[in-house]
Amino acid sequence: MQRAAVLVRRGSCPRASGPWGRSHSSAAAEASAALKVRPERSPRDRILTLESMNPQVKAVEYAVRGPIVLKAGEIEMELQRGIKKPFTEVIRANIGDAHAMGQQPITFLRQVMALCTYPNLLSSPSFPEDAKKRARRILQACGGNSLGSYSASQGVNCIREDVAAFITRRDGVPADPDNIYLTTGASDGISTILKLLVSGGGKSRTGVMIPIPQYPLYSAVISELGAIQVNYYLDEDNCWALDVDELRRAVRQAKDHCDPKVLCIINPGNPTGQVQSRKCIEDVIHFAWEEKLFLLADEVYQDNVYSPDCRFHSFKKVLYQMGPEYSSNVELASFHSTSKGYMGECGYRGGYMEVINLHPEIKGQLVKLLSVRLCPPVSGQAAMDIVVNPPVPGEESFEQFSREKEFVLGNLAQKAKLTEDLFNQVPGIQCNPLQGAMYAFPRILIPAKAAEAAQSHKMAPDMFYCMKLLEETGICVVPGSGFGQREGTYHFRMTILPPVEKLKTVLRKVKDFHLKFLERYA
Amino acid sequence: MQRAAVLVRRGSCPRASGPWGRSHSSAAAEASAALKVRPERSPRDRILTLESMNPQVKAVEYAVRGPIVLKAGEIEMELQRGIKKPFTEVIRANIGDAHAMGQQPITFLRQVMALCTYPNLLSSPSFPEDAKKRARRILQACGGNSLGSYSASQGVNCIREDVAAFITRRDGVPADPDNIYLTTGASDGISTILKLLVSGGGKSRTGVMIPIPQYPLYSAVISELGAIQVNYYLDEDNCWALDVDELRRAVRQAKDHCDPKVLCIINPGNPTGQVQSRKCIEDVIHFAWEEKLFLLADEVYQDNVYSPDCRFHSFKKVLYQMGPEYSSNVELASFHSTSKGYMGECGYRGGYMEVINLHPEIKGQLVKLLSVRLCPPVSGQAAMDIVVNPPVPGEESFEQFSREKEFVLGNLAQKAKLTEDLFNQVPGIQCNPLQGAMYAFPRILIPAKAAEAAQSHKMAPDMFYCMKLLEETGICVVPGSGFGQREGTYHFRMTILPPVEKLKTVLRKVKDFHLKFLERYA
Repeated sequence: MQRAAVLVRRGSCPRASGPWGRSHSSAAAEASAALKVRPERSPRDRILTLESMNPQVKAVEYAVRGPIVLKAGEIEMELQRGIKKPFTEVIRANIGDAHAMGQQPITFLRQVMALCTYPNLLSSPSFPEDAKKRARRILQACGGNSLGSYSASQGVNCIREDVAAFITRRDGVPADPDNIYLTTGASDGISTILKLLVSGGGKSRTGVMIPIPQYPLYSAVISELGAIQVNYYLDEDNCWALDVDELRRAVRQAKDHCDPKVLCIINPGNPTGQVQSRKCIEDVIHFAWEEKLFLLADEVYQDNVYSPDCRFHSFKKVLYQMGPEYSSNVELASFHSTSKGYMGECGYRGGYMEVINLHPEIKGQLVKLLSVRLCPPVSGQAAMDIVVNPPVPGEESFEQFSREKEFVLGNLAQKAKLTEDLFNQVPGIQCNPLQGAMYAFPRILIPAKAAEAAQSHKMAPDMFYCMKLLEETGICVVPGSGFGQREGTYHFRMTILPPVEKLKTVLRKVKDFHLKFLERYA
Repeated sequence: MQRAAVLVRRGSCPRASGPWGRSHSSAAAEASAALKVRPERSPRDRILTLESMNPQVKAVEYAVRGPIVLKAGEIEMELQRGIKKPFTEVIRANIGDAHAMGQQPITFLRQVMALCTYPNLLSSPSFPEDAKKRARRILQACGGNSLGSYSASQGVNCIREDVAAFITRRDGVPADPDNIYLTTGASDGISTILKLLVSGGGKSRTGVMIPIPQYPLYSAVISELGAIQVNYYLDEDNCWALDVDELRRAVRQAKDHCDPKVLCIINPGNPTGQVQSRKCIEDVIHFAWEEKLFLLADEVYQDNVYSPDCRFHSFKKVLYQMGPEYSSNVELASFHSTSKGYMGECGYRGGYMEVINLHPEIKGQLVKLLSVRLCPPVSGQAAMDIVVNPPVPGEESFEQFSREKEFVLGNLAQKAKLTEDLFNQVPGIQCNPLQGAMYAFPRILIPAKAAEAAQSHKMAPDMFYCMKLLEETGICVVPGSGFGQREGTYHFRMTILPPVEKLKTVLRKVKDFHLKFLERYA
């Protein structure tokens, strides 16, 4: 009779509690005998289901690789099977994945990485001396001189020193290697710090302030941790500027239902591409100081600034320039990565964070938490080292390195301008200047009839728009609803990474699609 | 007056709520004026403190990189500064870090990795053709033919296919690439699956059964997720065998206060080194089936089996051999890694998991969760590919590859025996056979007087023992309390990775220390 339990739903099933001791081969025989009696049985219900799973994980959304990207994959499969479409390839403009869009790796970076990977090459005459010097330095700091050893949980010592020296040069303000933690891409650092920060229950649950639109890592981690998301809206009419009055509104309202403790900033902005002015950063730091908020500064696009009027200022630098009341009190974690900039080395998952004014006991807790995962990938750490310690004038590789770097960044600046200009020529599309980062986030007009059609498909209007765009042109972009946007406005995010000629084609196709879409749902 | 809030403890400080609008330069001036009035002020209290932090993270412990390892680091620094010690170097026998202990990387693996890293080398005559073939295959599956592109969240397609083919060969049972997820080391896979599984509150909170002694990743992730740890004890008197009666006892008791939903198995055992018999695995699977437990099989040491009487059997294989009632119902996730085995490539953070009978909706949730972190390091995925797709007879590199692999594994087998034999010659040390994995976990006699001395230092007796061992010999091992052990018994974990001669020295030093310790506290 006990076997019957197998056929009953989990919820109502008394746990099998019969005596242990029978051979389970005979149990299996018994079970299969039982099956013969009821041949129509369905497989036993699963333990792990949508109903039983972690509800916080269930609540996570991540649009950059969401349904639209799954659909893109399906369409690619169909194209491969020879199914006819109005296009011949899917263009994945949904993600900032530079090499996948044809950008070439920086030669020096890959030379050092190859030398570290296979040290026999250190005796090869085809590698430059400055690359060998970097590789030797990294290997000497690795256990057994191998990238295959675990590093310290916080990262390889000499790489942390190089990161600190890089920050010092960048900011003109000293950085301490002890405050540097190497990470598995910036995402890992951001989620680790948030993990430490979230506590409390009910009205004292930690609130995390994030920009809207935001990069959905933030909302995803907030869901996963069961923290409270506190939105502050960037000002689209003012080039997506951050306005401290809006921060003030957001924090005031949030205090009714949570304990706002963290303020996240993305500068240059993702998906919005604005570059914060020094004055704005000062205002934000003062606000954080006043409201006692822990600052998270996501600065992974620090090399991607295109507008001649804009310059990147790090939060760390401005914090120190504001004087000791700020620099010795405001708690700040800032993040960088190998994935963006001119190198675009996403696959290595390299990154670092710098923490300022972190309580010494919390540093201990952070190292403990990191140590559970042992260490970030050492190859990613090595890639990060090359980014912060590139060839300098006088070194053999300097000229080629500079040429390659400037080519990528010059090209991106050109594409940023091109994208803004072309989008703004389309009726019903409005695009703020792409001051930095790698994306356009244009506002699109969606006619009421299209919104109704979307509703009948149970889709957000911009998701409906992006799905149609994908199905009709093969261009994969992410709907604005995946990043957040003001109620009643619609956007999409598109990378500007495709090569210039391809980007022009993409923009033309988006334009044609958009006009047809407006017409169809007029 | 508002500025005075700065000087007040956070808890009692009313949030600053004055009107926004003053220049904060003047605010800063005001603040610094205030400081002049109270020159003895301490820095403002931190937002993130031991009191305010995430209590679940605070509860995490991870002994493998815990206090003893921090102490080892301090001693190394002291040695570097020329401080005299009774030894000249610290031997980090606390962690299974093969290359750091001098093990050489497998040539073929590093050749393929170098080719993938710097594809210019594909035209170099100094690399064998079979390595180039592997590299081309991997690169063709990467966006833009670059390791620098993001892969699919689940991992590079062709690598998942190679993993599935490897499992099929290993088990004689088909594996589906769709069930393979590449991970950032095995730790990442284990914590991801546990994250999905944990739910419920109070008495219905998810219980996770883990062996005692365990690898402390498990207890750490359980703490972090706020799940309930359910201990089952391995039988030290029976070579650390897993006894299903003990599983039954543990689950029965656990049901009083939680919902036991997951059963974790480590085979070969870490830290305990036992290799499970096929019969035992069958018993465990039947038990999981009967009790409706989700199975996690940590099989990262599957290549590390030394006892001639033992063989590695995967849970997947045994599950399928037990027939469809089991193979189509029991939910299983099993884990492998590049870090152990004969390759010891810990730094690349490569790994995979295979899931069986995962509900299709949960597969979607899993991919969503993984996509938030974008992808595992692509270099680690490539390393995993080489492990599952090594040179075969007839290929140029086969002979060298086999020689290197057998050298490492033969050497480990020799050291396993040596360690067991030498430990068992020491009065007050008892060591089970090291059937597999890379560690000895001997039981040590700690005299009552030593336990008292430990208590006066607020240390667990085995922590006290290991600290003394470190301070007096420079040998760093991890106390058994970091893995869990039966009340009143004491152990430590030590890797057998040092080269044979060094290992002999280590064992001799441990013996001398132990005898002196017994004498001192007699």
